[in-house]
Amino acid sequence: MNKETYSWQEAILYSHKMAQLTKAIWKSIEKDWQEWIKPFDLNLNEHHVLWIAYHLRGATVSEISKFGVMHVSTAFNFSKKLEKRGLLTFSKKEEDKRNTYVKLTEEGVRLFEETMAEHDPEKNSVMQASLPLKSIYGSFPEFQELESIVKHLYGDEYLEILDRSLESIRKEY
Amino acid sequence: MNKETYSWQEAILYSHKMAQLTKAIWKSIEKDWQEWIKPFDLNLNEHHVLWIAYHLRGATVSEISKFGVMHVSTAFNFSKKLEKRGLLTFSKKEEDKRNTYVKLTEEGVRLFEETMAEHDPEKNSVMQASLPLKSIYGSFPEFQELESIVKHLYGDEYLEILDRSLESIRKEY
Repeated sequence: MNKETYSWQEAILYSHKMAQLTKAIWKSIEKDWQEWIKPFDLNLNEHHVLWIAYHLRGATVSEISKFGVMHVSTAFNFSKKLEKRGLLTFSKKEEDKRNTYVKLTEEGVRLFEETMAEHDPEKNSVMQASLPLKSIYGSFPEFQELESIVKHLYGDEYLEILDRSLESIRKEY
Repeated sequence: MNKETYSWQEAILYSHKMAQLTKAIWKSIEKDWQEWIKPFDLNLNEHHVLWIAYHLRGATVSEISKFGVMHVSTAFNFSKKLEKRGLLTFSKKEEDKRNTYVKLTEEGVRLFEETMAEHDPEKNSVMQASLPLKSIYGSFPEFQELESIVKHLYGDEYLEILDRSLESIRKEY
């Protein structure tokens, strides 16, 4: 992994393509996500906090920050707002005083489940734009290369949390 | 492409995975991009406008909006700021009065080239995180599935502009 393994031109071509493709897809996901949760008076970060705390059955602020890809202070501030709305509670564990745990209240669970019940894959543009691939290959793409990149960017822990979150969705619905 | 071709659970699993992977990668690209151009007193959107106008040898505001994945008014407002700094000019074409064209000034070209000269792939986290894939496969991933999704999201034109931009980089450096 030294600089001799790629040329400057190769690097800029690759970075530019990655930037354009991931910006285009993420911005589309962001827009649809905002539309979906607007009726619940939640913004994307707040819903992401609820999502993580729900599917991980409680999470630390640091896990929310990491998996939600937001600064620790952003994760904390949005969690604080949700606490004020009675949707979650903060706590410390006897054996681990350093971390702050976030857990949804009954009201938080109810609201999160309502948002999920409202999710309509027909209105999810990236889903729809992926159907031609599914019809060719028989299943949605796995994106193992993206997983490998994310693993090297954020560490194994990120993909472990993703797996726990996907496992919880599999069990739940 | 009707709703019978996938289950609700399949859809939500796929969407969740896509959201987590593209958010993680795009946020990392965004952070590195901001670091890179900070010394030039440009924000990411301004640099993206310069990038597009430079590599397309002039572009319409609507092309900048589409390929930059920003609202038309955002593309226009940032272009306006760059015009005030003497980095680009607006014009209309005799044969096409509806579109506003953006072209870099000599000063704009000079500044953009300076930013490119400063680009250091060693500081590009996504590049570095992709090197293990390159060392396995011998080249960087192509991401044809992402291209297909983007094509269905934004139309053929998006990938055509991407090709023009990549072609320009190939010729330039």
